[in-house]
Amino acid sequence: MMAQLMTSITPRKAQASEDSMLRIFTVPEDAESTLSIIEQKLSEDLAGFLGNSIAALEKPLSEIETDFQAFQIPTAPRFVSDYTDEIMQNLVAHSVHTAAPSFIGHMTSALPYFVLPLSKMMVGLNQNLVKIETSKAFTPLERQVLGMMHHLVFSQDGDFYQQWMHSANHSLGAFCSGGTVANITALWIARNRLLKADGNFNGVNREGMLKALRHYGFDDIAILVSERGHYSLGKAVDLLGIGRDNIISIATTADNKVDVEAMRLAAKALASKNIKVMAVVGVAGTTETGNIDPLTELAALAQELDCHFHVDAAWGGASLLSKKYRHLLKGIELADSVTIDAHKQMYVPMGAGMVLFKDPELANAIVHHAEYILRVGSKDLGSQTLEGSRPGMAMIVHACLQIIGLEGYEILINNSLEKARYFSELIKKSPDFELITEPELCILTYRYVPSTVQLAMSDACQRQDWHALAQFNECLDGLTQFIQKHQREQGKSFVSRTRIQPARYNRQHTTVFRVVLANPLTGLEILQGVLAEQQEIAALDNEFLPQLLALASA
Amino acid sequence: MMAQLMTSITPRKAQASEDSMLRIFTVPEDAESTLSIIEQKLSEDLAGFLGNSIAALEKPLSEIETDFQAFQIPTAPRFVSDYTDEIMQNLVAHSVHTAAPSFIGHMTSALPYFVLPLSKMMVGLNQNLVKIETSKAFTPLERQVLGMMHHLVFSQDGDFYQQWMHSANHSLGAFCSGGTVANITALWIARNRLLKADGNFNGVNREGMLKALRHYGFDDIAILVSERGHYSLGKAVDLLGIGRDNIISIATTADNKVDVEAMRLAAKALASKNIKVMAVVGVAGTTETGNIDPLTELAALAQELDCHFHVDAAWGGASLLSKKYRHLLKGIELADSVTIDAHKQMYVPMGAGMVLFKDPELANAIVHHAEYILRVGSKDLGSQTLEGSRPGMAMIVHACLQIIGLEGYEILINNSLEKARYFSELIKKSPDFELITEPELCILTYRYVPSTVQLAMSDACQRQDWHALAQFNECLDGLTQFIQKHQREQGKSFVSRTRIQPARYNRQHTTVFRVVLANPLTGLEILQGVLAEQQEIAALDNEFLPQLLALASA
Repeated sequence: MMAQLMTSITPRKAQASEDSMLRIFTVPEDAESTLSIIEQKLSEDLAGFLGNSIAALEKPLSEIETDFQAFQIPTAPRFVSDYTDEIMQNLVAHSVHTAAPSFIGHMTSALPYFVLPLSKMMVGLNQNLVKIETSKAFTPLERQVLGMMHHLVFSQDGDFYQQWMHSANHSLGAFCSGGTVANITALWIARNRLLKADGNFNGVNREGMLKALRHYGFDDIAILVSERGHYSLGKAVDLLGIGRDNIISIATTADNKVDVEAMRLAAKALASKNIKVMAVVGVAGTTETGNIDPLTELAALAQELDCHFHVDAAWGGASLLSKKYRHLLKGIELADSVTIDAHKQMYVPMGAGMVLFKDPELANAIVHHAEYILRVGSKDLGSQTLEGSRPGMAMIVHACLQIIGLEGYEILINNSLEKARYFSELIKKSPDFELITEPELCILTYRYVPSTVQLAMSDACQRQDWHALAQFNECLDGLTQFIQKHQREQGKSFVSRTRIQPARYNRQHTTVFRVVLANPLTGLEILQGVLAEQQEIAALDNEFLPQLLALASA
Repeated sequence: MMAQLMTSITPRKAQASEDSMLRIFTVPEDAESTLSIIEQKLSEDLAGFLGNSIAALEKPLSEIETDFQAFQIPTAPRFVSDYTDEIMQNLVAHSVHTAAPSFIGHMTSALPYFVLPLSKMMVGLNQNLVKIETSKAFTPLERQVLGMMHHLVFSQDGDFYQQWMHSANHSLGAFCSGGTVANITALWIARNRLLKADGNFNGVNREGMLKALRHYGFDDIAILVSERGHYSLGKAVDLLGIGRDNIISIATTADNKVDVEAMRLAAKALASKNIKVMAVVGVAGTTETGNIDPLTELAALAQELDCHFHVDAAWGGASLLSKKYRHLLKGIELADSVTIDAHKQMYVPMGAGMVLFKDPELANAIVHHAEYILRVGSKDLGSQTLEGSRPGMAMIVHACLQIIGLEGYEILINNSLEKARYFSELIKKSPDFELITEPELCILTYRYVPSTVQLAMSDACQRQDWHALAQFNECLDGLTQFIQKHQREQGKSFVSRTRIQPARYNRQHTTVFRVVLANPLTGLEILQGVLAEQQEIAALDNEFLPQLLALASA
């Protein structure tokens, strides 16, 4: 029997027999077994389980790795309870408490309690969304989720959704594992539409990039995006045979939004080199600073250039759920395609990305069929997605949309955005901290800079003494890294760090703390605590801080 | 309060308030609520839950769709119990019972009971494997799973795994959502290695396909694969800018294995057109018939051609877990890269694909970095994967490998393969059925052909009267489709169908039933029942059957 009470003290050895192997597919666990008890705790008090099971103090990765050295699949089977005990010690204890209210460094949050049992049901149903035959009602459900998200972005009328939402040969979007696949899918479509079949040429999808560019007489094709564009765009153009050098990175203005005039000039320069712009990409919520590009202006530019307009709203798209703040994303409705991750600000667990298509014909640029599935005219979702077999995650998005509703999201999103505004005020009021970027959504960046150093730096800026400024920044980078690493290791709270080039510092590379306020459970006192802890940690540094103070008093 | 007992009869309306919204992140469900009760049933008796909740009789898709017409995200929140009641009716009841022992048409199976609570724990932990900071111990765990699977395929020694398994700048494989992404990743690597930086040329990853082919002086690049290759390869070459026409589809011999001599000739023809072969792809377990290409010979050919050798063992790779049958995949250890899906024959739920790299340097061809994560030298997994954010599914593979063990998999895999052999004998012994392809792994194809028709067809073959044969086949295709559809709709059992070109019928297109015997709970009596049911359904047909009998007696 595979699942046993943890009563024996003598070492036990599980046996592989036909009977024992069939039992793991049929016999549920004893209610007193380790795994059942854990599961009960998960249901009764997820936060308590995570708090108690995940070790607060961080263990170095090299130590954790010692528990994962075996490279041979074990020969004998093991008891479920023994295995569970082991992973509670070596895996769960050393995982990351992404749901902790004080874990404000990445785009994860606490989850609504109902997603756990629903996820379990999803796993038990084990549908495969690649085709109707293995997903049935999950297919219309996924199409409905895409339809609702499409409506959130593009607000078409009832007739539109009546006509297209369930149409076999159309799609309002593609569900996928995450924003990266969503962005790749959007640019794949843009490429195939630009280099489509024409006369004797059968299209880039059939003949490849070389013949496509020859046929159309382009020396290359390119993508225009802000320097703050997500790294997945680089992956996309590498994959698509366009090449990373053909992502034309456009500078941002002081507010971290792309400089549309600079983009227009770049497009002209490309045209003069016979390089066709394939797509303009707008970022709606940059990963580093949460700022939103001027989408309406970008849409106009894309129209001038007669190219695809994609908006990467993987992070910021959820803000459309707030009536109060959706105006921040104005212009998104002009996009040809939009990426939104439900596993970011929509409180869905990892693995729920989407790309939405304004025109339901768009996905036909990447359509593919096969004999045994994805037959022409079928409603199999796999014929228009990058991925093949994939799970019914759309169900969890569906549940959140229904159970939270627009009214619920309004409260949650507004709270996040307003908490970020509160935190930015708090930082500004703290003499030894410097706010680097204001929160437009719920991301902000800042750093610890003793007030005397702030004075000396502003003086250096006025004198335009960029060398002196660089000396300060170099020390501050070291200090910021020291604080961030120390804070993470102490395990009480977590902020991330990144490097940006603030206009006020002559665009010198600057390491900053990055905070994402997406967790509804993050209270204001936690934010106060984060600053207090950072101030304490800063005092522990005896390398960068003394240098800084010496520089400031020089 | 979001979760309430289903006691009130009057319509209830959930309220959105700050308090109610915070509660869904903190307050677990009442043990008597609908969702809690369902969850308990899932734990106690998954098979019973699925059997009772999924309607046996199939509802037409168009009717199911009527429940998924709303295109606006609902305004008001809903009670969890109300929502749960609703999806039990309109979603779960009309999902597909993929775990049913009589659902033998696709590559899904019953799941071991322990994957449900473990999946729930995985969702609750909500790690993001893109980087260490959001996954910690899950990163070495995933690397260990890839190491174990690498060892299963390539059997390197202890020093090898000691050196590479946890090395920051190397990887033994990439975990992903499924076989399609795995195949795309492998071919992406192959393309980038073939068209790598050289002299003034910065590599296809940076400069794109046009400049790459110009630099290397190729008129095109191509991939050689059997006509039975998976449709994901077509997606891959479309995405990669190679073009679908550059998948050179090679005929199979009578046993559905690729004709290596024909492939060699095709390679010569390509060379004479200055088209460079980028990769030879071997199929280890074709989707339609489960046959395995002659991998050793393909490896030799790839060496002759100095190209990448990829093996798509998404389905068949799990058979390596059987000492008794792993010889069927001999030569796989010569591959440069191998795709294996754990969510197929390894009894892991949907969403667990892998591609393994013989050479730990391979993935450096697609490596990418970013400022805030995936920094150079970090162990962030996202720097070498196609996907970005993704869940900790490797944990479930880890659990299955440990809890089932090699001894357990030996029993499970052997049982599947031997059940397929039993079923093929049963078909051969049934006068009105015709086995079309023998099972090499656990997939076989067959059709219903009344014995008199079989005689007449074999006569037509002897006379080489291909026209007469085509008439039979056309009617049989209609009959096979009729039976398959009817059987699916009756909901007692399910086989899939596909179209292949059997050598014995002069390679005429032939529709066949396709059976995959991957579910350990599928008993022999179920297989007998499937044939009996098909025979009964055949008798209901009054279109094709009469035509067939008339043809046979003509």
